[in-house]
Amino acid sequence: MNDTTTILAPGSTIGILGGGQLGRMLALAAAKLGLKSHIYCPDPQSPAFDVTPLKTVAAYDDVAALRAFVAEVDVITYEFENVPAATADVLAALKPLRPGARALAISQDRLEEKGFLASKNIPVAPYRAVHGLDDLEAAVAELGLPAVLKTTRLGYDGKGQRVLRAPGEAAEAFTELKPHPLVLEGFVPFEKEISVVVARGLDGTVRAFDAAENVHRHHILHTSTVPAAVPPGVEKHAAMLAKVIVVALDYVGVLGVEFFVIGGERPSLVVNEIAPRVHNSGHWTEAVCLTDQFEQHIRAIAGWPLGDPRRMADVVMQNLVGDEVDMVPGGLDGDTQPHLYGKTEARPGRKMGHINRIVRG
Amino acid sequence: MNDTTTILAPGSTIGILGGGQLGRMLALAAAKLGLKSHIYCPDPQSPAFDVTPLKTVAAYDDVAALRAFVAEVDVITYEFENVPAATADVLAALKPLRPGARALAISQDRLEEKGFLASKNIPVAPYRAVHGLDDLEAAVAELGLPAVLKTTRLGYDGKGQRVLRAPGEAAEAFTELKPHPLVLEGFVPFEKEISVVVARGLDGTVRAFDAAENVHRHHILHTSTVPAAVPPGVEKHAAMLAKVIVVALDYVGVLGVEFFVIGGERPSLVVNEIAPRVHNSGHWTEAVCLTDQFEQHIRAIAGWPLGDPRRMADVVMQNLVGDEVDMVPGGLDGDTQPHLYGKTEARPGRKMGHINRIVRG
Repeated sequence: MNDTTTILAPGSTIGILGGGQLGRMLALAAAKLGLKSHIYCPDPQSPAFDVTPLKTVAAYDDVAALRAFVAEVDVITYEFENVPAATADVLAALKPLRPGARALAISQDRLEEKGFLASKNIPVAPYRAVHGLDDLEAAVAELGLPAVLKTTRLGYDGKGQRVLRAPGEAAEAFTELKPHPLVLEGFVPFEKEISVVVARGLDGTVRAFDAAENVHRHHILHTSTVPAAVPPGVEKHAAMLAKVIVVALDYVGVLGVEFFVIGGERPSLVVNEIAPRVHNSGHWTEAVCLTDQFEQHIRAIAGWPLGDPRRMADVVMQNLVGDEVDMVPGGLDGDTQPHLYGKTEARPGRKMGHINRIVRG
Repeated sequence: MNDTTTILAPGSTIGILGGGQLGRMLALAAAKLGLKSHIYCPDPQSPAFDVTPLKTVAAYDDVAALRAFVAEVDVITYEFENVPAATADVLAALKPLRPGARALAISQDRLEEKGFLASKNIPVAPYRAVHGLDDLEAAVAELGLPAVLKTTRLGYDGKGQRVLRAPGEAAEAFTELKPHPLVLEGFVPFEKEISVVVARGLDGTVRAFDAAENVHRHHILHTSTVPAAVPPGVEKHAAMLAKVIVVALDYVGVLGVEFFVIGGERPSLVVNEIAPRVHNSGHWTEAVCLTDQFEQHIRAIAGWPLGDPRRMADVVMQNLVGDEVDMVPGGLDGDTQPHLYGKTEARPGRKMGHINRIVRG
């Protein structure tokens, strides 16, 4: 549907695909703006169902349910990039889908994403498409080892990837990882990872939050620290690249960009991946920005003016994974802002909440 | 019910009496802490019903509905001080009611409130109880004119009060204001109004937010500006008095205290009124405090440690009353954080939302 003009009045309804913590936090932000949220999710235990009375429990390929949902909402957004293309097509034919189908298609497929970024002269790690074992052997020869073999679709939190350290590991990894094709990424000797959450409004305005420095544990984001300990030029360059991406995609909403910082006297950046949605490494914004990433996303997709992403204090966001959530409430101290997602079962590796901690000078 | 020990686990349910904007903002804060909210309100169009699937639409004196409600929740709080005593009794017999029945009883009745404050040596405006016209004439003679004649119960936003400027106005005002008894308050030559939102945790910890300077229009709060333009000693004194009040009440939760500042070389304070709940003049905290007044209230009544009330920036909160809400979204600028309450009809005098504006140095 024509996506360039719809501006939502207060009282309108946002349709959100996905009922996890990101959908929940988007719905909370929408409520503060006087907007309703209707959550669409196949899981009847979705955390987001606790924060709005409007919900649809149905599969993403249930066309009748999708059509009934879209009739109840004024604009549609999503909390995850793996929305099936057919689902997006059904919805976008009837109401504005923001961010749009192109951002989804590109971010769902590592090869598409890298091809898009490279076409805009945005640095990415060296990579090769791997359709068969022959391709993989040639790619290993060209890019050297170590290298990372990844599925092109549906990977997250370290799932769908294998590090290759010796040529003999290639065949097994190729057989194990599904579905094909795969992509081999050359090793990037990075010093740290940073990320930038950037927003583009319906009117084309672009605003980036400050870069966060990210530390992972067991392939899951552990902490995001702001400001990132990088030279000012590196942070500015990251923000500039993030802005180039949203402009090139004619994007509306918030987008997360992960960068590897390659050290040395003149540090450089490569983009690791992009996510067309609010991003775990932007959760710190809730504590110290007048407009946080969730409100910024809702403002953008509602066609409202973007808010101010400036930061009022230094902050560390820490994910609470599995039973780490047990620190709430007993372990809370004064400088801590907790945010729990309302999940009942603290399975290992499951993101249960996060805390933002102000760093006072 | 024994109220001193219950600490809520994440996933517990807060019962909230009242479904207006304060109940709505409390429910949003509870959600961020991983707590559910069940809203009890007789109005089927309550704004708070948009932010949780758990609701009861029933009158406050519907004992069967109250009992069914209390069975579904773990602790009960309220967004307005005029909860009928009988309602409070039904609930408090079954589950912790926080803040407790005593705070309700005192704040529901201006005479009780003034008597309580005076008993703690907290300065209040001179006042006299007015049971009959004789009392009123004697009170006018003692306190002088102008003076303000007020109902003892159910007054808010300038309703239930009349300014007396000449003795001849007394009889008509006495007849007009209901129900009796009334209270006559002597004129306080105040320079400005400030307010302090203070919290007391279940463990007895007390934390006050910075004082706000309040400006009213047509008897409705227009702006709260922080910091208040008063000498540091005055702000400290206000915070101290607010703390004395919550300690004296053995209070659990957030309480708002309005003060008149009487000018001169050594400014002094009198307490205008107290409100045993989150307060309109504390809405600025959402923009610039790690823990805002809504989260602070929920933390307190959940038995959780209180959060940090420190302020990260200067701020002005402005209420959007009636059609002033039409400035959203078109009139938003970068430094503005809007908060709309989801009310459909912008009647004159109705609080539709507010905006927080950062004041940059």
